[in-house]
Amino acid sequence: KKNYNIALLPGDGIGPEVISVAKNVLNLAGSIEGIEFKFNEKLVGGAALDAVGVPLPEDTLTAVKQSDAILFGAIGGDATDTNQRHADIGIALLQLREGLKVFANLRPVSVLPQLVDASTLKKEVIEGVDLMVIRELTGGIYFGKPKGFGTNENGEEIGFNTEVYAAYEIDRIARIAFETARKRRGKLCSVDKANVLEASMLWRKRVMAIAEEYPDVELSHMYVDNAAMQLVRNPKQFDTIVTNNIFGDILSDQASMLTGSLGMLPSASLSESGPGLFEPIHGSAPDIAGQDKANPLATILSAAMLLKYGLGEVKAAERIELAVLDTLNRGFRTGDIWSAGNLLLNKLEITHEPNQY
Amino acid sequence: KKNYNIALLPGDGIGPEVISVAKNVLNLAGSIEGIEFKFNEKLVGGAALDAVGVPLPEDTLTAVKQSDAILFGAIGGDATDTNQRHADIGIALLQLREGLKVFANLRPVSVLPQLVDASTLKKEVIEGVDLMVIRELTGGIYFGKPKGFGTNENGEEIGFNTEVYAAYEIDRIARIAFETARKRRGKLCSVDKANVLEASMLWRKRVMAIAEEYPDVELSHMYVDNAAMQLVRNPKQFDTIVTNNIFGDILSDQASMLTGSLGMLPSASLSESGPGLFEPIHGSAPDIAGQDKANPLATILSAAMLLKYGLGEVKAAERIELAVLDTLNRGFRTGDIWSAGNLLLNKLEITHEPNQY
Ligand SMILES: CC(C)[C@H](C(=O)O)[C@@H](O)C(=O)O
Ligand SMILES: CC(C)[C@H](C(=O)O)[C@@H](O)C(=O)O
Repeated sequence: KKNYNIALLPGDGIGPEVISVAKNVLNLAGSIEGIEFKFNEKLVGGAALDAVGVPLPEDTLTAVKQSDAILFGAIGGDATDTNQRHADIGIALLQLREGLKVFANLRPVSVLPQLVDASTLKKEVIEGVDLMVIRELTGGIYFGKPKGFGTNENGEEIGFNTEVYAAYEIDRIARIAFETARKRRGKLCSVDKANVLEASMLWRKRVMAIAEEYPDVELSHMYVDNAAMQLVRNPKQFDTIVTNNIFGDILSDQASMLTGSLGMLPSASLSESGPGLFEPIHGSAPDIAGQDKANPLATILSAAMLLKYGLGEVKAAERIELAVLDTLNRGFRTGDIWSAGNLLLNKLEITHEPNQY
Repeated sequence: KKNYNIALLPGDGIGPEVISVAKNVLNLAGSIEGIEFKFNEKLVGGAALDAVGVPLPEDTLTAVKQSDAILFGAIGGDATDTNQRHADIGIALLQLREGLKVFANLRPVSVLPQLVDASTLKKEVIEGVDLMVIRELTGGIYFGKPKGFGTNENGEEIGFNTEVYAAYEIDRIARIAFETARKRRGKLCSVDKANVLEASMLWRKRVMAIAEEYPDVELSHMYVDNAAMQLVRNPKQFDTIVTNNIFGDILSDQASMLTGSLGMLPSASLSESGPGLFEPIHGSAPDIAGQDKANPLATILSAAMLLKYGLGEVKAAERIELAVLDTLNRGFRTGDIWSAGNLLLNKLEITHEPNQY
């Protein structure tokens, strides 16, 4: 029997609810596939700030580093919190990514036929969208130095950050992107602002160099402003997209919203050799926390990504993906993806025979 | 009789075609309102590069600085051009903005009832959208120093740029934004990444300070990733948006595409006291250049912004806006905004009596 240590970081708001459902799903899939999970639950975010005074306790960082993979819920304050608390919580997430060296953030965005109506885009534009945004996650303007506050030569107050990429950082994310594109439809679009930014010029140069290792992948380049347009105009043109940390933050959120159902979308953040971090892309949704309304599918699908990308347990991952599709096919919906003709759920009950998937 | 010197920069691709139509429209509106224009046409972009070897000749910069306002077509290479040529042309635009000190870029995005169908978004989501994106245009990562290439402490090649804002740069764009919001529906949304970037933290702090001068304007703040989502989810929630140079580049292009018809959207770039730069937001569209297919309305509406924001000639501006609406109401369309039931034009003929508007 195989054994894995999974660190669970429920976090804030709806985080604990969706993590607890996904944990049950992991146990169920594991029981069929002969996999045993040991779960180690730790504090992070506002929950950690309240309990122990810091948003990323040492103890949490140590535990996640020793785990085989990490399932993360969501962190974040609510509208009543100060800017400072929001910033502290945001920075905890950056420290976690940095600590785990998870430089590759993978976000599949696909529009399920069952949920085409949830989009604000027209059916013919969105139907069949199936893309993957790969965001560089531990470099660029999020971490570049120098950064801070100061005064300029006229004594004026300034705030500054540094967008910087080294060749190896670009090379390794480019390789992940080419490998991913190769396993998908063989098309990679690299997004940058190489007509203006030196950091982007190096980005483009290195991506073109790495492309020589992947002659079977069709590479294109797009400026970030155009990419933001094209995602609205014709998202079906994209297969795999690779971009830097800040552009990836913006474009992956934009791309997710095309589906109209953030509650469905998982993500994986991978490092060179350590454990990966798996999380739904939605936030902590404080407005619906504790009401048993949250859609757990994004976290359940993140658990499937954990099995596939984090542990190499592809069969167990596919069982979960099938079970999610089957649940949707039977018409069960949470409120965020509900439309006429579906059954409204308060809680996702797992009632069917587990081994049918 | 009033006299104005207008610098015309047709540029590349469809630039010359749309500028020549807009010039006729300006003359016509001027003739009714007792305004005379002296046009001074200059080279810029690829056209200048081909003719005199630089994309922004001295002569052009001198002429635009001495004008009362500038009407710009579009610049840009085509798919056969090298990355270097694309970058050279892009940089010419930055030099022009810097030379003119046009720090405030105004981009109205409104969905005309006549063109609701052109959007890829559902009718109910897009109907009635009427927002203004105000982008800071001469600061931030586009111009910040240090920037360039180098090596890091491990001898690895790096590329870097500096995102930097000084308090006065934020204050002056914030004031333009509050003034604009006040004349519109009184709502301003400031977009930043203040949970991560110091430059954004200063941005938010200064915007909040300037807000005290405008108690009648309702101010909100949004992170850029969320803003990119909300523009897809529910664009009607926005009135005026203000943001930095790079976020504005991305979000204003994304917002424009919501209308589905880039060919309709004008822009104004304003300085503290010198001449403003007015241009359609679309590019040089080399694929349709010289075929008399280009939609001139974005440039015509830019000429209206030139009259209103650049010269204070509000009545002449409104005549042009009305004429555009009337032309659409009569069913005339260029191919980019054509749908069943409209008359397809190759060229926008101005056939009606000019003084009816
Ligand atoms: C909370 C914030 C620091 C974070 C980011 O910008 O990376 C979030 O927006 C995300 O995308 O995970
Ligand atoms: C051509 C490029 C330098 C420019 C920019 O990024 O500002 C363009 O995208 C724009 O928005 O006018």
